[in-house]
Amino acid sequence: MAPVPNPCYRFVSAPAGYPDPAKNFQYDASRTIDPDNVDLKGGFLTQTQFLSVDPYMRGRMDAGTFDCWKVGQVWAGFGISEVIRSEVPEFQEGDILYGIQPFEHYSLHTKYEGRGKLWRVIHNHEDLPLSVYLGMAGMPGKTAYYGMKSIGDPKAGESIFVSTAAGVVGQTVCQFSKAWGLKVLGSTGSDEKVKFLREELGIDQAFNYKTSSTAEEVKKFGGLDIYWDNVGSETLDVALKNMNLKGRIVVCGQIASYNGEDTKGIKNIFHMVYNEVKMQGLHVSTLESQYVDEFYATVPKMIEEGKLKYTEDVTIGLENAGEVLVKVLKGQNVGKAILQMWE
Amino acid sequence: MAPVPNPCYRFVSAPAGYPDPAKNFQYDASRTIDPDNVDLKGGFLTQTQFLSVDPYMRGRMDAGTFDCWKVGQVWAGFGISEVIRSEVPEFQEGDILYGIQPFEHYSLHTKYEGRGKLWRVIHNHEDLPLSVYLGMAGMPGKTAYYGMKSIGDPKAGESIFVSTAAGVVGQTVCQFSKAWGLKVLGSTGSDEKVKFLREELGIDQAFNYKTSSTAEEVKKFGGLDIYWDNVGSETLDVALKNMNLKGRIVVCGQIASYNGEDTKGIKNIFHMVYNEVKMQGLHVSTLESQYVDEFYATVPKMIEEGKLKYTEDVTIGLENAGEVLVKVLKGQNVGKAILQMWE
Repeated sequence: MAPVPNPCYRFVSAPAGYPDPAKNFQYDASRTIDPDNVDLKGGFLTQTQFLSVDPYMRGRMDAGTFDCWKVGQVWAGFGISEVIRSEVPEFQEGDILYGIQPFEHYSLHTKYEGRGKLWRVIHNHEDLPLSVYLGMAGMPGKTAYYGMKSIGDPKAGESIFVSTAAGVVGQTVCQFSKAWGLKVLGSTGSDEKVKFLREELGIDQAFNYKTSSTAEEVKKFGGLDIYWDNVGSETLDVALKNMNLKGRIVVCGQIASYNGEDTKGIKNIFHMVYNEVKMQGLHVSTLESQYVDEFYATVPKMIEEGKLKYTEDVTIGLENAGEVLVKVLKGQNVGKAILQMWE
Repeated sequence: MAPVPNPCYRFVSAPAGYPDPAKNFQYDASRTIDPDNVDLKGGFLTQTQFLSVDPYMRGRMDAGTFDCWKVGQVWAGFGISEVIRSEVPEFQEGDILYGIQPFEHYSLHTKYEGRGKLWRVIHNHEDLPLSVYLGMAGMPGKTAYYGMKSIGDPKAGESIFVSTAAGVVGQTVCQFSKAWGLKVLGSTGSDEKVKFLREELGIDQAFNYKTSSTAEEVKKFGGLDIYWDNVGSETLDVALKNMNLKGRIVVCGQIASYNGEDTKGIKNIFHMVYNEVKMQGLHVSTLESQYVDEFYATVPKMIEEGKLKYTEDVTIGLENAGEVLVKVLKGQNVGKAILQMWE
């Protein structure tokens, strides 16, 4: 086989505010690779199938942030790839891998030592579409599952309030909560999403925070055993005031703070004292080793059985990565944003 | 023995702001009791030795608060009493009891069923002054110990920042922390107290928050594994910004909120996410069953061995209860405020 194109998608300059793909990113179609003959140097070669585009990527573009991208580097993110050739014993030709993947068609993993633990072979006994392993059975699903297991500590009959409930993580938290016997309240930003949460996901109560009072909706719903916090700000303050004894707050995101909108600050911390409320920040990667096997043994099966529903927003073509990210950052995607490499 | 006086101290009206003892309380010297002949009705009779006067009592005077006092009732609080006569098998004449005690000279505990667990016999093998069982070996000591054990989770070599470090609970947290091998920073409100914390308690760093910048002092001290929060407000915000990975915040009190001074609100909650910080409200009474035996087996011995130092502010005479409370609320006591019944 002759060399084939191996395009990649680069980060070339840091955006201010929303990225401008034409300015900040570059689709580089100049590179080639010979998949049959390239020297593996004791490593392995993968062909990318699906890539995950997520809001956290915007943060990686700011110099000095955790694990930030260098100017000129190829994007990196969660991906599903197929092993084409391998000289490592863990992976065989045809294996499907999940892990952090450069945004390119083919990837050569030569400096291999110790990197095996960064990849997981997806056996997919449930015969799910592979892209699901980037969504509900991937990082967003893990965020929901690990956060609920390690901090939320749900017990059947308890109540939970989920902010940004129609987001990918929020939807998953809502559905785990229903599956585990919780009473679920969700907040979201449009009447269509309220309808989706009630009718499609079957959660108990949902409201549009732009047209309803969060304080009144939560009060009407009743005391909270768990609050899943994606926003911070006044929503967190309302939750703090309504937590039940020994309530738990999973701090997954603080959208209001990221954009500098959290000007008022949180005033109800003192409610934590008498109610012995626990509030804890969630970082999914450090919980991986503790929950990963349980997750893959549980969640794909729940999806197969129809206990968890998922929606995807699939875009075809690596060259569209930047546009997909902007869509995600503006909340214009409907379901998990997936970049599919090939038709 | 003829009847003897059995004075008591009553709550007669709710204060607005600081209590006015002459108006809000009443020392009632009219009652008598015959200790030798009063009918125990299957219960037991105690003579009060020491009573604890604490800031939380102000809260009990507001109608609708947790366990609030009724107008006209005798004050209740932690006390050390001696059993004078007993018809219950658990307690013998001469036993020293710790528990919730009415503010009166003699107490008849007739409706006894199930109340045994509300009292603990103090064996005092260490021969400590009994008043210590209301301070470092009593509720404030338990607050410090239970909070550190259940939420703080200290490991030798870690760092802790203690707000209101010269208060009774704060001093105890500082000393446990030193005994357990932590590096300790304390904040307090006067240069004398800074000197006390450094020279008497030997903590690593201390500062006067009224004349120094909390943000600069904490930054200079370095990242925090534990923050003991008694104040909330900007001090909590500074701590949130400086927590180490997997740091723990014990929310013990929120003084700034109680007085309505927390106008700015907490803005650094988002730091909890990447650092996986845990923040939890502490309510000592619900942790009692889990830690009480360990506490009494550990703390009196540490005091006997000189590993924990305590200071007391003793006032003699039940008629002074109200004045002592005002002193405590104004922070004018030096050490644990104790009301001693007899010379």
